[in-house]
Amino acid sequence: MSLKAVVLNCTLKKSPKPSHTEALIRKVTGLMEPLGVESEIVRVVDHNIPFGVSSDEGAGDDWPGILDKLRAADIVIIGMPIWFGVRSSVAQLVIERLDGTYDEGDPETGQFPLYGKVGACIVTGNEDGAHDCSSNTLFNLSHLGCVIPPNSDCYWVGDAGPGPSYMEAGGDKHMYTNKTARYLAHNVAFFARLLKENPIPTNLKQLTEEARAYSEDECPPRHGAGA
Amino acid sequence: MSLKAVVLNCTLKKSPKPSHTEALIRKVTGLMEPLGVESEIVRVVDHNIPFGVSSDEGAGDDWPGILDKLRAADIVIIGMPIWFGVRSSVAQLVIERLDGTYDEGDPETGQFPLYGKVGACIVTGNEDGAHDCSSNTLFNLSHLGCVIPPNSDCYWVGDAGPGPSYMEAGGDKHMYTNKTARYLAHNVAFFARLLKENPIPTNLKQLTEEARAYSEDECPPRHGAGA
Amino acid sequence: MSLKAVVLNCTLKKSPKPSHTEALIRKVTGLMEPLGVESEIVRVVDHNIPFGVSSDEGAGDDWPGILDKLRAADIVIIGMPIWFGVRSSVAQLVIERLDGTYDEGDPETGQFPLYGKVGACIVTGNEDGAHDCSSNTLFNLSHLGCVIPPNSDCYWVGDAGPGPSYMEAGGDKHMYTNKTARYLAHNVAFFARLLKENPIPTNLKQLTEEARAYSEDECPPRHGAGA
Amino acid sequence: MSLKAVVLNCTLKKSPKPSHTEALIRKVTGLMEPLGVESEIVRVVDHNIPFGVSSDEGAGDDWPGILDKLRAADIVIIGMPIWFGVRSSVAQLVIERLDGTYDEGDPETGQFPLYGKVGACIVTGNEDGAHDCSSNTLFNLSHLGCVIPPNSDCYWVGDAGPGPSYMEAGGDKHMYTNKTARYLAHNVAFFARLLKENPIPTNLKQLTEEARAYSEDECPPRHGAGA
Repeated sequence: MSLKAVVLNCTLKKSPKPSHTEALIRKVTGLMEPLGVESEIVRVVDHNIPFGVSSDEGAGDDWPGILDKLRAADIVIIGMPIWFGVRSSVAQLVIERLDGTYDEGDPETGQFPLYGKVGACIVTGNEDGAHDCSSNTLFNLSHLGCVIPPNSDCYWVGDAGPGPSYMEAGGDKHMYTNKTARYLAHNVAFFARLLKENPIPTNLKQLTEEARAYSEDECPPRHGAGA
Repeated sequence: MSLKAVVLNCTLKKSPKPSHTEALIRKVTGLMEPLGVESEIVRVVDHNIPFGVSSDEGAGDDWPGILDKLRAADIVIIGMPIWFGVRSSVAQLVIERLDGTYDEGDPETGQFPLYGKVGACIVTGNEDGAHDCSSNTLFNLSHLGCVIPPNSDCYWVGDAGPGPSYMEAGGDKHMYTNKTARYLAHNVAFFARLLKENPIPTNLKQLTEEARAYSEDECPPRHGAGA
Repeated sequence: MSLKAVVLNCTLKKSPKPSHTEALIRKVTGLMEPLGVESEIVRVVDHNIPFGVSSDEGAGDDWPGILDKLRAADIVIIGMPIWFGVRSSVAQLVIERLDGTYDEGDPETGQFPLYGKVGACIVTGNEDGAHDCSSNTLFNLSHLGCVIPPNSDCYWVGDAGPGPSYMEAGGDKHMYTNKTARYLAHNVAFFARLLKENPIPTNLKQLTEEARAYSEDECPPRHGAGA
Repeated sequence: MSLKAVVLNCTLKKSPKPSHTEALIRKVTGLMEPLGVESEIVRVVDHNIPFGVSSDEGAGDDWPGILDKLRAADIVIIGMPIWFGVRSSVAQLVIERLDGTYDEGDPETGQFPLYGKVGACIVTGNEDGAHDCSSNTLFNLSHLGCVIPPNSDCYWVGDAGPGPSYMEAGGDKHMYTNKTARYLAHNVAFFARLLKENPIPTNLKQLTEEARAYSEDECPPRHGAGA
């Protein structure tokens, strides 16, 4: 069974500028290929993606096309650089745009479009912050419906303070990064196959209705319309 | 097939003081029960757990007994309060103690003791910080080997600033919390069953050796022994 | 002595769409005014600000004009909404663009352009994440040279899960938010005045040279040019 | 004018085990000494500090004695190792115990005991997470009343993945860490002196009362006592 991965490269730099994040992404996609995973890498800044939280922000918005690729994928990977200890603005933009998918639940199960897909992330930076980027991004993907396998992140950073980036520092030969790239590739491929054969049965719509029976209305606004 | 969940309640308060986190934990375990999940809740501060990063800190350490419970579980859930926007010190202590399991890989596959178990978390606080607690904790669990299903967290917080906590504020009737408690219960049970029947085959030892062939030694210390 | 504050509103929504973050910003600027602080609010998305980490990304870049305003200010405030528990992509974009100021140290002292200015932040969201947004943003501002007074953040969020935003929920009447808005206004004004009269004397250039004498070269790249 | 700094070393290891964090702390205190700052380092785990959020947890609690030292200090520095990308459990424990100081406002101004002191932090780890530890800790200190000068953190971490720690890796010779240690020392000393001569005048009690006039009661609990 062949699998499809879409990797969003959230570098700040447009093509054809070299991207350190892309170098690490290509290492991971190269490792997934012999496992039957065909990958497509999308460099987000090469497209016109307006800020917003809907799936279509109107004329000229390239996001709907990217979202279609994600819908068709078995594996969703967010690749990103770290800036100031936090995931790049482009990565945050992508996550914000995915907010729109919460409104597109399956009519029967209520599952969002990314439900049951496998999520992973790839992070590069020259000093620090990979744990924060990965934990936020994998958590957000899990909320959007993705499953997060063990060791589902791969990162490279240099030591304290500014310094050479992944390609400049010979990160290609970094043992820890090379090891975790393999863990990621194998676990992600295993789970994508497993979930294709065993779709998650959870009916979110039904559970929402059940919850409603045990809940009260939200707290009303603090001052009424007449105030 | 019956499943076993162990929930570590990382409240700062010893029994028999009432714990808001425990109230939400009990809601979740009550929802998992009809799905065939038997739960055991451990209030960590009732035991003597020294600070450390090994699986056994010596005489009087109660952690080995708790770790045995985790080893025997299918589902590992960390419940915790938020303090100052960050997970409680007891939750952090538990995660630190789990560091020792990295050294206990299976002789053949190298998989750590928590590999293939299902991870989830439950968070309560009176104001803010649930996303940060959940993302860090689920990410840490995924590194330790757990699978993170979609919607694998459940939380309650009040609005901005200090205020009443979960039980005092009628959090029991909170629609969003009640809904996500159900999502969590159903997804966690589905994945635990799925993984029991389909164990993760990834051989971490083999992949580590493979990575070594493509890697160089770590950067040497900056000044030699004679310096 | 009159003081100048520049507030960057990092909402995702262009004018004239109503911005909840702007509503809270206006509350704070209104409180600073009687303390002698004149404020200018810039809604960042109304301008053309390309992704990047320099102070000028070339033709059509509106950032140099905004940076000039920041240079002339005594007080720098970042206002932002929370999305997925993390500061908005626009806030992250702004912080990334400020990276360029590290290269513009004073010829004599090496102090960056924001050195000695007072930093603060204002956050709105409907559910959770204000602590994470504030801590990252104030920390980044402190690295860029700003002083962070006590209680230098003001936020409003609703309780767990999606719900009404600041203006819809009557956040205007929220005691905690109204209290901390005042703490922020008074402390920020005090420190801006204090620092205008007592500029920070630290000579970063000199200290860098001193550090060099006690340090070794950075770790060399892992594989040489010939590898 | 002589100044007093108290540094809490939040390592997990009891004396006399060597602490990498302490090695970096001693570098910083050594740099502050010629600037007229006398430092006292407290290794927190050598004392009996129960979990809790009050300033005195009863018989056998050593925290009141440490808190007295903090009250008498001009500069408060938290030193900590990173574990799993997050500040150590001991650092979190210390911050939790400081929660009690919110209840000890000055009768006239309402200022908390740490108000107007200068806050800083020192972080060591072998791989990643210094930004997250620093931003949370400095933000928490600012909420407790401390002023955060520019460049008020100093850290050392190695590159991606586990590896040698500060002392083992020759971190003592690390240029970035040595540079920022100096920035920290000079800025912290300047601000401590400045604030001793110019105490913050903000009256929190008065501002709280003023806020109350513009606010409504908190949202009532969702179900009443009779429900």
